[in-house]
Amino acid sequence: MPREAVPDLKTYLAEKRAIVDTALHDYFPEPEGLTSDLTEAMRYSLFAGGKRLRPILCIAGAEAVGGSGKEVLPVACALELIHTYSLIHDDLPLMDDDDFRRGQPTNHRVFGEPIALLAGDGLLTEAFSLMTSPGISVRIPPHILLKAIRLIAQAAGHEGMVGGQAVDIQWEGKKADLPVVNFMHTHKTGALITASVASGAVLGGADESQLRAITSYGEKIGLAFQISDDILDIEGDTQTMGKRAGADEEKGKMTYPAVLGLNESKKIQSELVETAVQGLWEFGSRAEPLRQIARYIIERKK
Amino acid sequence: MPREAVPDLKTYLAEKRAIVDTALHDYFPEPEGLTSDLTEAMRYSLFAGGKRLRPILCIAGAEAVGGSGKEVLPVACALELIHTYSLIHDDLPLMDDDDFRRGQPTNHRVFGEPIALLAGDGLLTEAFSLMTSPGISVRIPPHILLKAIRLIAQAAGHEGMVGGQAVDIQWEGKKADLPVVNFMHTHKTGALITASVASGAVLGGADESQLRAITSYGEKIGLAFQISDDILDIEGDTQTMGKRAGADEEKGKMTYPAVLGLNESKKIQSELVETAVQGLWEFGSRAEPLRQIARYIIERKK
Repeated sequence: MPREAVPDLKTYLAEKRAIVDTALHDYFPEPEGLTSDLTEAMRYSLFAGGKRLRPILCIAGAEAVGGSGKEVLPVACALELIHTYSLIHDDLPLMDDDDFRRGQPTNHRVFGEPIALLAGDGLLTEAFSLMTSPGISVRIPPHILLKAIRLIAQAAGHEGMVGGQAVDIQWEGKKADLPVVNFMHTHKTGALITASVASGAVLGGADESQLRAITSYGEKIGLAFQISDDILDIEGDTQTMGKRAGADEEKGKMTYPAVLGLNESKKIQSELVETAVQGLWEFGSRAEPLRQIARYIIERKK
Repeated sequence: MPREAVPDLKTYLAEKRAIVDTALHDYFPEPEGLTSDLTEAMRYSLFAGGKRLRPILCIAGAEAVGGSGKEVLPVACALELIHTYSLIHDDLPLMDDDDFRRGQPTNHRVFGEPIALLAGDGLLTEAFSLMTSPGISVRIPPHILLKAIRLIAQAAGHEGMVGGQAVDIQWEGKKADLPVVNFMHTHKTGALITASVASGAVLGGADESQLRAITSYGEKIGLAFQISDDILDIEGDTQTMGKRAGADEEKGKMTYPAVLGLNESKKIQSELVETAVQGLWEFGSRAEPLRQIARYIIERKK
C-alpha cells in the first residue's frame, strides 16, 4: 500500500463513521417515559466511542459489488447494535467482570447489572427490528433482505459469536491448542465481522461467486482482527486502548500468542491480511476501502 | 361456552403442542462439538415442559383468518425461543434469582450463570435465524414474513417485553399505581402474547381490519394472562405450578391484586376475556380455538 493512501482511509473511515453515528442517533432519540433508564443504558454503550468497524465493513461490502452504502445503512447500524450488546453482556460480573471499556465505566457499573443485562437484550432485539423496518425493504428486495438477516442471525447466535463466547468462558485458565483457539476466534469475533461485509455484499446485489470472495475476505480479516486484539493486549498501551493491557494473560484467556508465540502470531496475521487483499482482485477499485481496512486492522493501536 | 367444548380445547392444545414440540426437536438436534454445553443449556430450558401457549396462539391466529398453521410453524417456534430466553435471563441471580421453574432447577443452577446468560442470548438470536430460514419464505411472501418478524421484534424489545422487565425490576418494592402496573403487564407479558397471535394472523393473510381485531384480542388476553399469573401467585399451589407461590408479594412485585385487590382483579380479568371473545365475531368458527384459549387463560391452575 503506498504511503499516501493512508490519509484516504482515514477520511473514508471518518466519513462513514459520521454517517453511521448520525443514523444511530436518529434511531435512538432521547429517552423518555417509564423505560428511560433502559434506553439511556442502551444509548450509553452505543455512543461510547466505537470505531463502527462492522457497519463500515457492511457499507464497504455493498460498495465493492456496486451497491449503495446508503441503502444498507439500517443493516449496518443493526450490526453495531449486535456488537454493542455482546460487549455489555461480556463485561458483566458473571462473565468477564470488566470495569472499563473504551476508557469509560462499563454499562453495569453505571446502570447496575439488571439494566445492563436488559440493555444488551434490548439492543440485540432492536437490531432485528431495525433490519425489518419498512424504510429499508422499499429499496431492497424483501427476499434479499431476509437472506442478509439470516446470515447475520446465524453469525451472531450459538453457531457463531455466542458459541465462541461459550468456548471462551469454558476454556478460561485451561491449556488450549490451536484448533480450539481457532474455533474461538473465528466464532467469537470472526463470524460477525464476516457477516458484516458479507451482508453488505448480499444487499449490494452480489452474485454467488462474488459473495464467496467477499466472505473469504471477511473470514481472513476477522481472524486477523482477533489476533491483533491478542497482540494489542500484550504490546498495547492501556491508555490508548481504553481498557487494561495484560488482562488476557491474567485471566488465562486463550490467545494466539499464548499458543503460538508473538512472532508466529504476527506472521500469520500478516499472511491473512495479504491473502484477504489478494482475493479481492476481481472487484477492482471499488474494493479499495476493503483492502485498506484489511491493512489497517494490523496497524491499529486500539 | 358449552361445557362439552372443554375436551375439544384439551385435544386442540395437546395436538398443537405435539406439533410444536416435534418441530422444536427438529430444529435443535442433540448437541455435539465444542459448544455442546451451550446447546444443551438451550435445549434444557426449551424442553422443560412449557405450555407452548405463544406458538399455539400464532397457529390459531393464522387459522382464524383462513391461513395454514403448518406454514407458520417456524415463526410459532421462534416465539417459544424468545419466551424461553426471557425466562432464563429473568431467573438469573442478578434479576429475580429464582432456583426453580416449572418444577425443575433453573438454567443457571444447572449450567452456571455464564452459560445460562449465553443460552438466553443464543435462543433470542436463533429465533430470528429460524424466522428467516429459506424453508419458510418459500411458502410465505417475503414482505409478509418481514412484517411479521418486525412485529415480533418490536414486541420483544425495549419498547415491549424488555421494557416491561426493566420497569418490573426498577419498581420492585416500591408502591406502584395502576398505570405503572398496566404498563408493566402489557409490556412484560402482553406484548409477546399479542405479537404471537398477530404475527400468525399476518402470516395467515389477514387484511388490516382483521389484523386490528386479532391484535385487540391479543392485547386483552395478554393482560388477562398476566393478571391470572398474579392471582395464581396468591391462590395457586406451589406443586401444581412448579414454582413457589407467594413469591411476588415476598419480592414486593407489582401485581394487579396488590393495587386493586383480589376481587376487583378477578372482575377485570373476566371482563377482558369476555371482550376479547366478543371481538372475534367476524371470524366465525375458525376462531373457536382462540375463544376457548381466552377462557382457558383464567381457568388454568399453572
